[in-house]
Amino acid sequence: MSNRNRRLVLAERPSGAIEEQTIRLEETDVPQPGAGEALAQVRYLSIDPTIRTWMDDAPGYLPPIAIGEVVRSSGVAEVLSSSSERYKPGDLVFGLVGWQDYTIADEGERTLQVLPAGISPTAALGVLGINGMTAYFGLLDVGQVREGDVVVVSGAAGATGSAAVQIAKLKGAAKVVGIAGGPRKCAWLLEELGVDAAIDYKNEDVAERLRESCPEGIDLYFDNVGGEILDACLARLALRGRVVLCGAISSYNERERKGPANYAALIIRRGRMEGFIILDYFARFAQAQAELAGWLAAGKLKAAEHIVEGLEQAPHALNLLFTGGNTGKVLVRV
Amino acid sequence: MSNRNRRLVLAERPSGAIEEQTIRLEETDVPQPGAGEALAQVRYLSIDPTIRTWMDDAPGYLPPIAIGEVVRSSGVAEVLSSSSERYKPGDLVFGLVGWQDYTIADEGERTLQVLPAGISPTAALGVLGINGMTAYFGLLDVGQVREGDVVVVSGAAGATGSAAVQIAKLKGAAKVVGIAGGPRKCAWLLEELGVDAAIDYKNEDVAERLRESCPEGIDLYFDNVGGEILDACLARLALRGRVVLCGAISSYNERERKGPANYAALIIRRGRMEGFIILDYFARFAQAQAELAGWLAAGKLKAAEHIVEGLEQAPHALNLLFTGGNTGKVLVRV
Repeated sequence: MSNRNRRLVLAERPSGAIEEQTIRLEETDVPQPGAGEALAQVRYLSIDPTIRTWMDDAPGYLPPIAIGEVVRSSGVAEVLSSSSERYKPGDLVFGLVGWQDYTIADEGERTLQVLPAGISPTAALGVLGINGMTAYFGLLDVGQVREGDVVVVSGAAGATGSAAVQIAKLKGAAKVVGIAGGPRKCAWLLEELGVDAAIDYKNEDVAERLRESCPEGIDLYFDNVGGEILDACLARLALRGRVVLCGAISSYNERERKGPANYAALIIRRGRMEGFIILDYFARFAQAQAELAGWLAAGKLKAAEHIVEGLEQAPHALNLLFTGGNTGKVLVRV
Repeated sequence: MSNRNRRLVLAERPSGAIEEQTIRLEETDVPQPGAGEALAQVRYLSIDPTIRTWMDDAPGYLPPIAIGEVVRSSGVAEVLSSSSERYKPGDLVFGLVGWQDYTIADEGERTLQVLPAGISPTAALGVLGINGMTAYFGLLDVGQVREGDVVVVSGAAGATGSAAVQIAKLKGAAKVVGIAGGPRKCAWLLEELGVDAAIDYKNEDVAERLRESCPEGIDLYFDNVGGEILDACLARLALRGRVVLCGAISSYNERERKGPANYAALIIRRGRMEGFIILDYFARFAQAQAELAGWLAAGKLKAAEHIVEGLEQAPHALNLLFTGGNTGKVLVRV
């Protein structure tokens, strides 16, 4: 253990992608845990699009990251020392650890969860973590996925999308179409994840490919991206189709956000568009994790991970999500 | 009874508002009813925004009106002669009568409904007709209005909106805010219909007035207009707020439709935006009409009507809806 703590703090608010001057590396002493607290060393950071939204000075489901504050981020850490009954040295814990080497866990606001036995730290951050939970409750609860549905997922090669296409299949969707950027991701979706069709939005006409692949219309669209792809899916919505709004990554780096011009399809097709925040489902996570862990163990669900080495690479790793440079869950190994 | 039938047919598709050349007046012989049919003379036409959408060559919940075809329109007619057991001379009947003097009712596709005793023909087309049904099921079924809700209604001085603000109050909304164009309509909403606040979108800053009048956020927004007002309401949506998409009148005359830029508020606020078509609720109309007729009889619900005289004024009457020239239900007395 070093006696220095490297921390990546928000130096200024980005106006688009994160740049050199957005994040500042600071070194401080390793924090000293007080009574009832534990010191933990960060092992993995979970790189999620929502981190970018927290950098804006805009209302959200959590307050913005303050200037000078460590970048807020989920991750997994290992407990080094503890004076809390809740944590033992050697425990792996997960929660909001921040972009830094060391973090303090307490029994109040800074509680971290002890990783259950048998769950790998990377799965805990991805397919059994927020991404898997988001895909699961987004499809089942918000989207009310039914046997026989035609399901379309955008950002399908991402952490949440790759879970969503697989869960939709496992829950009996008649057809699952994944939308992703580039031929490699599309081949991976077809060959590894078993989607029925993959659309390369960077090189293909999404509206036309949706017409071909979903002539009967779309019963459920799981939207990770917003923008033109949301519009193209609205235009093909089936009667009583559902749009699950999970994210709008295509716009997080934009100043001027455009709305879906085809939203009036919701009137004609008697459709529904609904957003959700996965934290609201916290009380039901264990039930979902049990089902997902069973599928993982049986080889029916694949966890795709994209690991970036080194804390100082965290800003680069976050930008990967917006340039589409990743396949599966992006993690930083600290 | 004249022996000529005046008919207003679609001469060409409008690109914006209806103009002189959009509609052509034709005269034909009065149609002759065949076996099992009735001849009826049109008394009132119901002037609805949806008529404008039927003039576009675009997919909708009914096919477009063909060029040369009589403009499709609801209305009330009086049976003159009949060889059908369903209709007796003197009966008032309502349904799709078209912009013309005479119509044929049959027992198949061109069935018209006989007006129940005690229901006025204008109420049958407005507050007890499609507008009342739309307000009722939009609020209760799609919007799931609850006691204590803060409800905002746009197009609040229109046929559907004026029913919606009153029904929301009758169903226990804690606060009802109506948005309409001009101080006269706003005064009418406050004084006659008993809304808690009225916002004049033509002369006031809607976003600011919504902040003032709904500091706690909007639980249910009943949207008749789309456009900037939809965006302003999305920006103030309360947690788990619902947006009922009834219409998008601000865009029906536009070529380039803009989507609601603030739709991502649905994610942060866990909101829902849902469209509907009132024809889907046909089987439940009688139940709703009974409740509305009871309120009407008790003086708890007011029917507001704006009557335009003469068949040839129907195109002008339709344009009134888009210029906001009406207060309440627009009807043409033929």
